[in-house]
Amino acid sequence: MTTIDHASPAPAPRRIRRMSERQTTDRAALFELLDTELVGHLAVAADGVPVVVPMGYARDGEYLLVHGSTGGGFALRAASEGRTVAFAVTALDGLVFARSLFDSSMNYRSAVVYGVLEPVEGDAADAALLALSERLMPGRSAEVRAMTRKEIAATRVLRLRLDDVVMKTRAAGASEAADDGEDHSVWAGVVPLARAWGAPEPSVLTPAGTPTPESVVALTTTAAHHGRLH
Amino acid sequence: MTTIDHASPAPAPRRIRRMSERQTTDRAALFELLDTELVGHLAVAADGVPVVVPMGYARDGEYLLVHGSTGGGFALRAASEGRTVAFAVTALDGLVFARSLFDSSMNYRSAVVYGVLEPVEGDAADAALLALSERLMPGRSAEVRAMTRKEIAATRVLRLRLDDVVMKTRAAGASEAADDGEDHSVWAGVVPLARAWGAPEPSVLTPAGTPTPESVVALTTTAAHHGRLH
Repeated sequence: MTTIDHASPAPAPRRIRRMSERQTTDRAALFELLDTELVGHLAVAADGVPVVVPMGYARDGEYLLVHGSTGGGFALRAASEGRTVAFAVTALDGLVFARSLFDSSMNYRSAVVYGVLEPVEGDAADAALLALSERLMPGRSAEVRAMTRKEIAATRVLRLRLDDVVMKTRAAGASEAADDGEDHSVWAGVVPLARAWGAPEPSVLTPAGTPTPESVVALTTTAAHHGRLH
Repeated sequence: MTTIDHASPAPAPRRIRRMSERQTTDRAALFELLDTELVGHLAVAADGVPVVVPMGYARDGEYLLVHGSTGGGFALRAASEGRTVAFAVTALDGLVFARSLFDSSMNYRSAVVYGVLEPVEGDAADAALLALSERLMPGRSAEVRAMTRKEIAATRVLRLRLDDVVMKTRAAGASEAADDGEDHSVWAGVVPLARAWGAPEPSVLTPAGTPTPESVVALTTTAAHHGRLH
């Protein structure tokens, strides 16, 4: 069947494990995944109930960066309480059409990072905000005014170390064998999935004729940067 | 900044709320989201730690369906233990380029469903497996052999009632005002994001010349079915 839940997490008791012998290889694959996706899901356990919030993020070296306003926020509470969080990033890369529903599947890459969110303070916070912006909208920071002190003060950056990570990948064709008894005249294969950026839509107050900025042009003409067609 | 974590969950203590006065309107939007996405994230709390697994799913009326093998599995454990789970589905619909990094954002639709997974048994399980297949790969079940009793016996279907749901949406242009002091000669706007299915890739054992099946043709020619370009 078409599911990716065969990728179960590590068994009890702790259900968290470091990448082991595939650490080196997986590190590159992990970074590639994290550097092409834009949104993850942050989960925190509260009184036995998991609470999940989708969130933009960026990888900066050995950390994931997220941010929230100082007014409150889910991630900030989790950080201040020192709770272990999970941050999940998944890319769906294709549907796998096998010759049976049972063997049909999805190609995907998934990483779940476990750890405690740490506040980023001072000059490091400024650098982290810039890193977030450059990852999510490369080049945009040079096109707009600098952040004001008030804006910076109203933003908290948190980081999560890429230490305890469960990464799963399926990147293969349909399961099949010459002697599996299936009718091979039935088409089997993979339909790849990628992202497509649409035509930029200027805002109401953008004067007619204002050129589309380089950051937007780069985004919409380099789809490979934010997706994979393979 | 480019984030969607402003969409905080409901405040403590329970952090779960039903859709209130927007129930009717949101129901249609909720179903649209759930019927266009293919993968969600299932979260369970275990000893204060949230564990998250990405998982294919399908909506069937007032329920989400997921499945796992009988050999074990994360969802099955959560169901058998009666734990409250969270199942999160998010669609990233675009990047919002404001005239400041602070006001830049993402357009998205997100639903987090809270509840206890229930096993689906007997004839209902057969129907649920078919519903899962038809949602994820419409038409495919008619192109391949029927599932065997052994395959059906090896698969457990679980359902999660669409009752306690937190849905958040941002679907708007860049924040701006005529008197906001920003330089309006700077382009602001939205870059929409959608899915793109690539060319089908036949498996090694699919004989040359085997026609691409209708299910795959339909998938790859009706991109709107599985994504939005708007």
